[in-house]
Amino acid sequence: MTDGTQDTDGTDAEASAQRTSIGARRNPATAEAIRLAATEILAEKGYAGFSVEAVARRARAGKPTIYRWWPSKAELLLDVYHRQKTGMPEPDTGSLVEDLTIYLDALLRIWRETPSGTVFRSLIAEAQTDSAAARALRTYLDQRLDQSAAMIRRARTRGEISETVDPLLAMELVTSLAWTRLVTDRLDMETAAVRAAVSLFVESWRA
Amino acid sequence: MTDGTQDTDGTDAEASAQRTSIGARRNPATAEAIRLAATEILAEKGYAGFSVEAVARRARAGKPTIYRWWPSKAELLLDVYHRQKTGMPEPDTGSLVEDLTIYLDALLRIWRETPSGTVFRSLIAEAQTDSAAARALRTYLDQRLDQSAAMIRRARTRGEISETVDPLLAMELVTSLAWTRLVTDRLDMETAAVRAAVSLFVESWRA
Repeated sequence: MTDGTQDTDGTDAEASAQRTSIGARRNPATAEAIRLAATEILAEKGYAGFSVEAVARRARAGKPTIYRWWPSKAELLLDVYHRQKTGMPEPDTGSLVEDLTIYLDALLRIWRETPSGTVFRSLIAEAQTDSAAARALRTYLDQRLDQSAAMIRRARTRGEISETVDPLLAMELVTSLAWTRLVTDRLDMETAAVRAAVSLFVESWRA
Repeated sequence: MTDGTQDTDGTDAEASAQRTSIGARRNPATAEAIRLAATEILAEKGYAGFSVEAVARRARAGKPTIYRWWPSKAELLLDVYHRQKTGMPEPDTGSLVEDLTIYLDALLRIWRETPSGTVFRSLIAEAQTDSAAARALRTYLDQRLDQSAAMIRRARTRGEISETVDPLLAMELVTSLAWTRLVTDRLDMETAAVRAAVSLFVESWRA
């Protein structure tokens, strides 16, 4: 209290409060109840009927509790969306064209065959006019690109592709095709067509 | 009336009606008045205030007249959007990387610096839940891809890229990056970064 650390007392107090307040930590059981409620509401009423208020009511949780963990409706929705999008492979065949083909093929199929495609389209729509949804979508894209770019990093490590290929940018190119297909409702791409598209990324166009 | 052409009388009558009805042809002056009204309303009130009814009122045209020429609000909007998006270059430098860099750089800049980016984002949003808007967006994308793929067709013709490169698919890959940047509000891509992305399309990733 008598030295220079006094300057940081405010911060220390906040940190201390965070340490002692159990409420500030995510309680796994309640978080799961909220996710479950959100999942059910999304399945029953679709995106249009999805609201933090409706989720709070069904989960018997307070809205502030939900907002403490998911700062916006979009973040809660993306959490549920991502957990629902099971069955996404993490291929590691030793061939980048093969890995990306498996990945892209599965992504298009899951969007096509499960409600996840419609949910994600609704979220993209909301992100065009709602800034919180836009932020959540950007963060989600960043996280997904970082994770799926592992395919490209591995190809670099094994010397299959050049060290000059930026894994995140490369993964963004591949993912962008899927997003454009989703927002224009053209997900019906056969595996051979997916492979042709992936080849157009990885192989040279040069004559 | 006594031979086999009787079967097609209905069709003939319709065709004849079309030939004699001047109203069924697009009157250039009135079409221009409608486009002008649509442009003004979009500038003044944005996408949210844009409706066929508002355009009809300002243009002193009937809604049926508008719908005869633009079957949906989305088609009228895309017509206006596209005409406003002036300054889009049609580069033909003799180098595909250069052409695509100029093209993509200009597209991102126009979306960033004029209201066209916001207008197109609103239209993409509407296309996620409105099937007429979705159809209009798909048709627009097809037309734009066909036109901009000329850069890739020329590169093929001059032997710069392989005959195996599908110009439409290749152009869709390039365009998809721009769309993803638009819908995630990340249009601030410097020319050098655009060139790096274009190079990742055209050059081989192979080590």
